[in-house]
Amino acid sequence: MDPTLDYEQIGYAVADRVATVTLDRPEARNGYTVRMSDELAHALERADADPDVRVVVLTGAGRDFCVGADLSAGGLDLDGADPAAWDEPAGRCSMRIFAMNKPVIAAMRGAAVGAGSTIVLPADYRLASTDSRFGFVFSRRGLYPEGASTWFLPRLVGLGRALDWMVSGRVFDAEEALGAGLVHSLHEPDRVLDRAHELARELIANTAPVSVAVIRQLLYRMAPLDSPFPVRRLDSRLIAGAFTSPDAVEGILAFLQHRAPHWRGSVPADLPDGLPWR
Amino acid sequence: MDPTLDYEQIGYAVADRVATVTLDRPEARNGYTVRMSDELAHALERADADPDVRVVVLTGAGRDFCVGADLSAGGLDLDGADPAAWDEPAGRCSMRIFAMNKPVIAAMRGAAVGAGSTIVLPADYRLASTDSRFGFVFSRRGLYPEGASTWFLPRLVGLGRALDWMVSGRVFDAEEALGAGLVHSLHEPDRVLDRAHELARELIANTAPVSVAVIRQLLYRMAPLDSPFPVRRLDSRLIAGAFTSPDAVEGILAFLQHRAPHWRGSVPADLPDGLPWR
Amino acid sequence: MDPTLDYEQIGYAVADRVATVTLDRPEARNGYTVRMSDELAHALERADADPDVRVVVLTGAGRDFCVGADLSAGGLDLDGADPAAWDEPAGRCSMRIFAMNKPVIAAMRGAAVGAGSTIVLPADYRLASTDSRFGFVFSRRGLYPEGASTWFLPRLVGLGRALDWMVSGRVFDAEEALGAGLVHSLHEPDRVLDRAHELARELIANTAPVSVAVIRQLLYRMAPLDSPFPVRRLDSRLIAGAFTSPDAVEGILAFLQHRAPHWRGSVPADLPDGLPWR
Repeated sequence: MDPTLDYEQIGYAVADRVATVTLDRPEARNGYTVRMSDELAHALERADADPDVRVVVLTGAGRDFCVGADLSAGGLDLDGADPAAWDEPAGRCSMRIFAMNKPVIAAMRGAAVGAGSTIVLPADYRLASTDSRFGFVFSRRGLYPEGASTWFLPRLVGLGRALDWMVSGRVFDAEEALGAGLVHSLHEPDRVLDRAHELARELIANTAPVSVAVIRQLLYRMAPLDSPFPVRRLDSRLIAGAFTSPDAVEGILAFLQHRAPHWRGSVPADLPDGLPWR
Repeated sequence: MDPTLDYEQIGYAVADRVATVTLDRPEARNGYTVRMSDELAHALERADADPDVRVVVLTGAGRDFCVGADLSAGGLDLDGADPAAWDEPAGRCSMRIFAMNKPVIAAMRGAAVGAGSTIVLPADYRLASTDSRFGFVFSRRGLYPEGASTWFLPRLVGLGRALDWMVSGRVFDAEEALGAGLVHSLHEPDRVLDRAHELARELIANTAPVSVAVIRQLLYRMAPLDSPFPVRRLDSRLIAGAFTSPDAVEGILAFLQHRAPHWRGSVPADLPDGLPWR
Repeated sequence: MDPTLDYEQIGYAVADRVATVTLDRPEARNGYTVRMSDELAHALERADADPDVRVVVLTGAGRDFCVGADLSAGGLDLDGADPAAWDEPAGRCSMRIFAMNKPVIAAMRGAAVGAGSTIVLPADYRLASTDSRFGFVFSRRGLYPEGASTWFLPRLVGLGRALDWMVSGRVFDAEEALGAGLVHSLHEPDRVLDRAHELARELIANTAPVSVAVIRQLLYRMAPLDSPFPVRRLDSRLIAGAFTSPDAVEGILAFLQHRAPHWRGSVPADLPDGLPWR
């Protein structure tokens, strides 16, 4: 990771321990490009490594989150890469979110179609505006879903809804997305980013960074296993280790004393040993 | 597959690129038999292989979709088969739907109980009538669920609802089925088949056959894996391959030109190489 | 298992073929302890082995189901165990429910937080009161989820809701739990235990014990597999075996004769051979 990289197509700002990453091509309705995907991956990795950052908010400049792949050049662009070794661009962002040790809140308004729908699937929260529109439109372009979205989507909304949306490729509105569980809540378009920052502050005020990092990875890495037995063994090891962890001592003490906790553990420095995905 | 097979218990008709397969024993409320299961499997394979067919609609003649196994002979019938090698009849239909490269729309009215509930679980869409009734009644007959329905049902409605329905064996109505996500929409009894054909026409007008075939199999074969990484690798290979695919070029061009696409790829002839389930 | 164990922290009573297991420390709002977890595991094993018991109801004495781990001693207690071999207490109960051959109905009122939320996740039914409150509060204590709850919860409510609840650690009310599918139904606080016993009677009157035992294990052990093919093979073997099973003969006969069935098979004595999880 090159810390001096200048971002051309995204914004990156840290305030109050929240990194806000912004798709920043409003003139193209944040059309997704290979460069944008690499800048997003870079910014996510930077936020994950920065001990001052606790939560990431991912949003778009202007009235749309992302209209999907930028097709203004008339098509997609392999950019000279070997097709067999190529990583398609949506997954460069979505798989980086999947790997995060910090929670990611997507704040979306207007169109979130194609890559706009797929890159946010591994986020911890998807907040949308009442005017949001989503669509897994690949079947209508002669294409295929990207970013491992066929893995994430049925885990969020069930296999029946995932088949409907991905087979038909139809665009659907915010209410349908909320009813199916694709998004967590709806807000007025000019309120959704504020609400994402409020939620970020709530998470920062209440939750231990190390616990959150482990929990989101447990849900992504252990829940899909065929059996709960390995999960139960890992739980036992983690909880046994917490007996001597400053954060657990502080968390329980603060709870008993009805006061706000002061966490000492930070991520990734203080992650427990023996996490099978590390 | 014998193309000259005469169907005794089902109907098969192709019109406007839709194959309509009809459980056709209305005098027995479409009671499910071993012969019916073999005819259904044959018809589904025939539709899947026919390049003129794009979508399958599965329905029942008369006022019920299917009341379950035909018990008029007083019980089930192994028909002389070796129990250790026997394939139970519901799975002969449901596993054939699972394997389809073309979408299947189930259009149901009245009773859809036992096999009537299980054979449609791997369909892409389940449209029901307001008078539909469903039931996984096996626990009430001293039997076991069939057709891999214990694999499909929790992926559609969640484990809590699946336990409720399958442990209790109770019959439930259309509203409960809709609320839980078992069916996609409800219609008047004499409208549900029309709506299935409308939906079939929408899918045919808008979606690329090869994309649809790959997408439904991605959702069935890749989504259950323990990790998104193999899915992401397959996505990348498929999308890299699409750069030179006539359908992707046409799909993007038609989108940019605001016109209906004309797909050249057909199924199964033009499926991409390297699909791990083939 | 020591059948003479005296329970100190739970109640155990069998009536009308229902074993009612009660968290019985109302003075501590049923705060969860290591002893309570061992008593619960013992009582569940006892109910599972008792041929007179068909259904287990799990509830709490007083106005709360369980406020979570008893922190009155100022923290958790490894009790001298080797951390590497230690089984954390919530899983001692939840994994025993997972292994049951008989259905478990949780009847909860008031607080069901921490262990109060996790130990019931593998129950067949969760009935709650209108004043119920739930919370996977581990991230707020510097701790980790227990009892393989990261495996169970997303299968009940989807990955999006599971991430929200477990990352934020927030406490949520009965309506939210019902809407997400965490609980099956809501009742007045003084009615929820009665309703659990009614449901137990309905299950006993209508369902075959051996079928129920196999069905709940199929849903837990086979549904998580990567593919439906092994499930379909097991279904076929089970159904072929049912042709000569007294319960299937009786179940079908009773259905055809419109009379209540009289099951002869009991659990665990009459479980079929070849179940892969035994």
